[in-house]
Amino acid sequence: MSFGFRVTHTDGRARRGVLTTAHGEVETPAFMPVGTQGAVKGVTNRDLEGLGAEILLSNTYHLYLRPGDDLIARRGGLHRFIGWTRPILTDSGGYQVFSLAARRTVDEEGTRFRSHLDGSAHLLTPEKAADIQAQLGSDIAMVLDECLAHPATSDATRHSMGRTLRWARRGRDCFLALREERGTGQAQFGIVQGGVYPELREESARETVALGFEAYAIGGLSVGEPVDVMYDIVSHTTRFLPEDRPRYLMGTGTPEDLVESAARGIDLFDCVLPTRNARNGQLFTSEGRINIKNARYAEDDRPPDPACGCYTCRTASRAYLRHLFLAGEINAATLNTLHNLNFYLDTMRRIRDAIAFGRFERFRLAFHQSFSRQPVDS
Amino acid sequence: MSFGFRVTHTDGRARRGVLTTAHGEVETPAFMPVGTQGAVKGVTNRDLEGLGAEILLSNTYHLYLRPGDDLIARRGGLHRFIGWTRPILTDSGGYQVFSLAARRTVDEEGTRFRSHLDGSAHLLTPEKAADIQAQLGSDIAMVLDECLAHPATSDATRHSMGRTLRWARRGRDCFLALREERGTGQAQFGIVQGGVYPELREESARETVALGFEAYAIGGLSVGEPVDVMYDIVSHTTRFLPEDRPRYLMGTGTPEDLVESAARGIDLFDCVLPTRNARNGQLFTSEGRINIKNARYAEDDRPPDPACGCYTCRTASRAYLRHLFLAGEINAATLNTLHNLNFYLDTMRRIRDAIAFGRFERFRLAFHQSFSRQPVDS
Repeated sequence: MSFGFRVTHTDGRARRGVLTTAHGEVETPAFMPVGTQGAVKGVTNRDLEGLGAEILLSNTYHLYLRPGDDLIARRGGLHRFIGWTRPILTDSGGYQVFSLAARRTVDEEGTRFRSHLDGSAHLLTPEKAADIQAQLGSDIAMVLDECLAHPATSDATRHSMGRTLRWARRGRDCFLALREERGTGQAQFGIVQGGVYPELREESARETVALGFEAYAIGGLSVGEPVDVMYDIVSHTTRFLPEDRPRYLMGTGTPEDLVESAARGIDLFDCVLPTRNARNGQLFTSEGRINIKNARYAEDDRPPDPACGCYTCRTASRAYLRHLFLAGEINAATLNTLHNLNFYLDTMRRIRDAIAFGRFERFRLAFHQSFSRQPVDS
Repeated sequence: MSFGFRVTHTDGRARRGVLTTAHGEVETPAFMPVGTQGAVKGVTNRDLEGLGAEILLSNTYHLYLRPGDDLIARRGGLHRFIGWTRPILTDSGGYQVFSLAARRTVDEEGTRFRSHLDGSAHLLTPEKAADIQAQLGSDIAMVLDECLAHPATSDATRHSMGRTLRWARRGRDCFLALREERGTGQAQFGIVQGGVYPELREESARETVALGFEAYAIGGLSVGEPVDVMYDIVSHTTRFLPEDRPRYLMGTGTPEDLVESAARGIDLFDCVLPTRNARNGQLFTSEGRINIKNARYAEDDRPPDPACGCYTCRTASRAYLRHLFLAGEINAATLNTLHNLNFYLDTMRRIRDAIAFGRFERFRLAFHQSFSRQPVDS
């Protein structure tokens, strides 16, 4: 089975669809839990399957450094290595190099950096990013782009966007050659950059689409810009992306962001928020965020979210979760993560259903009315 | 339902039976996973149920200090607080005070100590230990005994044994009064001490049994004495314990210890070994111990134990588990713990079946032939 995408319902600019990959189908809009090092922190694959996760994201930078893409290729690829039989998307490694690596320098060839693990020297080029991801055998590979710090001037953003486009051409050429050679069903997504500048976003989108990727992502958002600017850029950029290809908003976001971006035609999301916040004791509930450390929960026998049916909410009280968190128990991470991922995946199910039944606007309004922007317990 | 015990099969001195508690039945010989702070580290209650764990041990000292037995009592007791519907045994807190607390002094009244968490001052008496456990509402409470450091002279051991007996009488009286008052089905086990001295063990056993507990534990072993001495003391002590009551060997032990102690008439075990070693990367397999950190596993596609059918062995290779461990992933703890607990619980199932079919000696021999005393990969 090779890559495909089919829009099954639209409601305003929101779309419901089905993504087809070499490892099965994904209903969209979809949220991808992040398994940075080949595992989603705190939950097992069977937990993820139980939650209904249909696709995972894994990080090329981490896996390249440890255990190494060669080792994973010798194991039969990432799916077999980590025991996950459904679709996997891998990022290009560019963002992680940008945010984690030491002594990083970028030139036209690529990015030179030192590993954050052992200081070893590496060079990540568009070709190398394609090669590593071919070795991992993910269903969806991302092309290497240049990550720009926010805020950036229009000139700096244009300059960087130009490099991203040149890298996109090199990355695409290399990807196509590798796919031909290996005969795999891997797809590659291009990435639209252009910062907070609408005209650059349009230019980047048009030129990236001209390169003919299987689908397109919007990068360089959720990096510190105001949320309304992000929504405007998403709204603007999707207008220049083909209707018949999935659109992936990278590294986003909050539950509000998922709803607002789906409203603007986004089909795929990933973010560490539900998993990372779970480990820090922040839970997403139907009414908003709560912090389970809060003393007010010491004797609270209610589940984290009385409206939720996840394993955690069926079996654990706020009092117990607070105790586990304060006691430093591993189970605090597991139970909180199960709940937060369920909240995210359930929000996507509700988005998809609302689109299918033509009542997305009503859902969106109701969501914002019940889900508080401020922590419920602050 | 109140406490009961029925031996269903014997084979030599080994016994198979059924323990009845207020929260259901336990097939013996049984191993109790340790949920120190009200959670077994790295696995959820549903994981434990899936593994077939029928009874948990939880630590009175930890729960008393945090979140506090009052708070747990207000939540409806430990079962409800932690969401575990099957039997729970709680220890008396004595051993944890002995091994964890600061500035500890023992006199006839009890043990004065400072909390390892916040330095607060506490006094643990036989009455207090009974009271805390009544508040927790465990199915089986342990009487407070004095823990003696190993090695100890015969005189010191006799002196301490005497105090343990006086505490046992006080603890039993208090327990009976509390049970009468509360009308619960809680049982209380007495603890035989006497160190490595057979005549003291006999005396301690006879006098403890005379106090009329629901059942009896052997304490003060697995504290550094040679393993053969431990087996001899177990063998000797069980002769003075009633046949119709379960016998619990506290804090033991290795897989070999389980088999050898069951052979000597022990019915209940607890130990942190399978869970703690899992978190340190040591796995128990049918051939013996392996350390998953070992470089030889970097490209090993076999499951941890090819003879095992647990979730971890069905889905993860040694190479993947080594990667997760080296990467510091929470899942390393979870997957390793699932496997080690399965190994322990499966060993108990095999012991029970061997007894039922009258082939315990053959099982015991085969076990020692396949399970290496030395790490397989050392």
